[in-house]
Amino acid sequence: MSKSAARKQKGVILIADGMGDRPIDLLEGRTPLEAASTPNLDRLAAEGECGMMDPVAPGVRAGSDTSHLALLGYDPHACYTGRGPFEVAGVGLEVKGGDICFRCNFASVDENMVVTDRRAGRIAEGTQELTAAVEGMTIGDVKCFFKESVEHRGALILRGPGLGHQVSDADPHNEGAKVLAAEGVDEASKKTAAAVNEFVKRSYEALRKHPVNLEREKQGKPPANIILPRGAGVAPALDSFRDRYGISGAAVVETALIAGIARYLALDLPDVPGATGGYDSDESALAQAVLAALKDHDFVICNFKAPDLAGHDGNAAKKVKCIEKMDRLVGEVVSNLRGPTHVVVSADHSTPVSYKDHSGDSVPILFWGPEVRRDGVQAFGERPCAAGGIGRIQGRYIMHILTNLMGTQEKFGA
Amino acid sequence: MSKSAARKQKGVILIADGMGDRPIDLLEGRTPLEAASTPNLDRLAAEGECGMMDPVAPGVRAGSDTSHLALLGYDPHACYTGRGPFEVAGVGLEVKGGDICFRCNFASVDENMVVTDRRAGRIAEGTQELTAAVEGMTIGDVKCFFKESVEHRGALILRGPGLGHQVSDADPHNEGAKVLAAEGVDEASKKTAAAVNEFVKRSYEALRKHPVNLEREKQGKPPANIILPRGAGVAPALDSFRDRYGISGAAVVETALIAGIARYLALDLPDVPGATGGYDSDESALAQAVLAALKDHDFVICNFKAPDLAGHDGNAAKKVKCIEKMDRLVGEVVSNLRGPTHVVVSADHSTPVSYKDHSGDSVPILFWGPEVRRDGVQAFGERPCAAGGIGRIQGRYIMHILTNLMGTQEKFGA
Repeated sequence: MSKSAARKQKGVILIADGMGDRPIDLLEGRTPLEAASTPNLDRLAAEGECGMMDPVAPGVRAGSDTSHLALLGYDPHACYTGRGPFEVAGVGLEVKGGDICFRCNFASVDENMVVTDRRAGRIAEGTQELTAAVEGMTIGDVKCFFKESVEHRGALILRGPGLGHQVSDADPHNEGAKVLAAEGVDEASKKTAAAVNEFVKRSYEALRKHPVNLEREKQGKPPANIILPRGAGVAPALDSFRDRYGISGAAVVETALIAGIARYLALDLPDVPGATGGYDSDESALAQAVLAALKDHDFVICNFKAPDLAGHDGNAAKKVKCIEKMDRLVGEVVSNLRGPTHVVVSADHSTPVSYKDHSGDSVPILFWGPEVRRDGVQAFGERPCAAGGIGRIQGRYIMHILTNLMGTQEKFGA
Repeated sequence: MSKSAARKQKGVILIADGMGDRPIDLLEGRTPLEAASTPNLDRLAAEGECGMMDPVAPGVRAGSDTSHLALLGYDPHACYTGRGPFEVAGVGLEVKGGDICFRCNFASVDENMVVTDRRAGRIAEGTQELTAAVEGMTIGDVKCFFKESVEHRGALILRGPGLGHQVSDADPHNEGAKVLAAEGVDEASKKTAAAVNEFVKRSYEALRKHPVNLEREKQGKPPANIILPRGAGVAPALDSFRDRYGISGAAVVETALIAGIARYLALDLPDVPGATGGYDSDESALAQAVLAALKDHDFVICNFKAPDLAGHDGNAAKKVKCIEKMDRLVGEVVSNLRGPTHVVVSADHSTPVSYKDHSGDSVPILFWGPEVRRDGVQAFGERPCAAGGIGRIQGRYIMHILTNLMGTQEKFGA
């Protein structure tokens, strides 16, 4: 028997998006996390084991997508083929390894195929009906899966034998230009290009006289009479979270990009009313969603977006407030746990207020639960955690450490 | 746009060659760095963020070449095919990926091709003229590039289609032995061997009656009448520093081996009068060369050789003095910086006085500049830095960390 007979525990990873930062003069040389009032995080740090974490590798500026792949144990250097496939998954399409994925716009063209509005007047309503008119298309042995996203955006999957991904865009990226014929670099990509061009042509045929567009024209709005794919990317073949770890998992997240990562790994994605992905997001709703998901899953990962927004906005005071919301989220989760559970708290990357973008600075991390080796760290912050018992680790090891503490990990060797 | 719009900064890496060491009884259990008076290094440590660095990996005894490759972000396990190609670059030849590189000697042979002096009397003058007589040779579709180095030494490149590198030496390595016919292991290497043998033959024809040699014979000196290649190595294809990081760079160095690494990566190599590579080297000249290079480059790496010499000599007192010279070098650079700059100070490896050779002991490292997370370390030394906020990192991550602080790094992901 390669699994331990010890009682299995549950595991939670709570990520404050972009929480890591650099010392700020306005905060008397402290980081926002160090300056914030975080009684719950400090208690967990004092009771747990702390360290510093490089989401991808020391100094590497990670995206939220590459970071979350790493945090879930999937090496982004090996499996990240670009944001396309994960965005497509985020829109709600089921992606399979080898699928050719595209971002799309509903656009407006005239009868000469000249693009008059790349975003069809930022159409907000009716895209579901338009989608119904193009979905389920088959072109030769290529199946097309299309789904609308927010406003004029959508996603397209082409699935079939012998498709390549080195395909140019049908979207000319400029208004006043004609729709482009997609071109493929190699034989496989030429097959994809032909399917793209046929999909574009059929989308025009299906949408030009669609009732939604007739109504829009009546109202003087640009019609959403064509779909223009761009940014082809091939979907990597990844084993699901359950296949990899042998446990069930859910993701409580606020953004489509991270939802895409989660859906790609077949994590369950509960709907969280009140999770807006903005400054006004309801941290209590997220905490309750984590607790609810823990009832019927072994593992839950949660991403709270707000600290990252404040970093991008360069607003130190706001970042402090967002981190204090994170502290309440963590407190609400931890004080309502049922049964032995290990909790990890960290960030997916730093978004320093001084830099206003993701940086490669390491982030603090804590492991809390009945099995950890409690160290001497008394507060959760960049500098305190650097002295912790965990030392400096890379993101791809977190699931190993967590499933080890949970008692669910297979032994490597005899 | 994947790069941050934040202001770009400059970056400097200052390397004290072989500075790392072990506790020495004579120094009351301190290392030479801990025992030396280093007010500038201590100030930077106190104002910066410190840690320990393994140039290649923990415990691995790095060469100066493998270490500098790693410090510049090039994995030596992947790209180091032996010192040959880098030495050839150090001599001043432009090396391309796939080139077959050789170290060579000017030697003396008699009419039976028996080697009478492997170093042609350590010939010191006239090798440029001799080189002119053999350079620009073409053998079939193989181009030969030869350049003289110091004394009897030289370097040879063979460039052409289908050349292998598994070739034995033409140099018999013993006097009184005949020049060897180089032999190749496989078809590609047999082609190389044939070119080597033809090059050796033609070098004899071109040099035996050369005026330089007629004059040497008149003076009773052994003639430099043949060139004997040895140590074949294939040049790895490496992207240039600029291609890899998108910034300009220069190297202020004292030794041919490290100059070879720098030239291989297409770093600019300013000439530094006063940089002797010996104990008497002018550290102020090196500092001024760094400052001058910073005017028109984004990045400068500097290597100060002397501490390594003292380590090889097993002289603790001398090593302390050399490290105090390094301290002055660092002080002169830092107090004359113009504009925001991040500075890294470290060693390329340890050369313990007790061991008299490179060891695999980790080395202290500090990051200093406006964006670092200042930690509690107050002095620059092996033991103080082990408690720093950087923790323990590997050499190949330094450029990630530095370009992150400089604000010049592309983001990985979205």
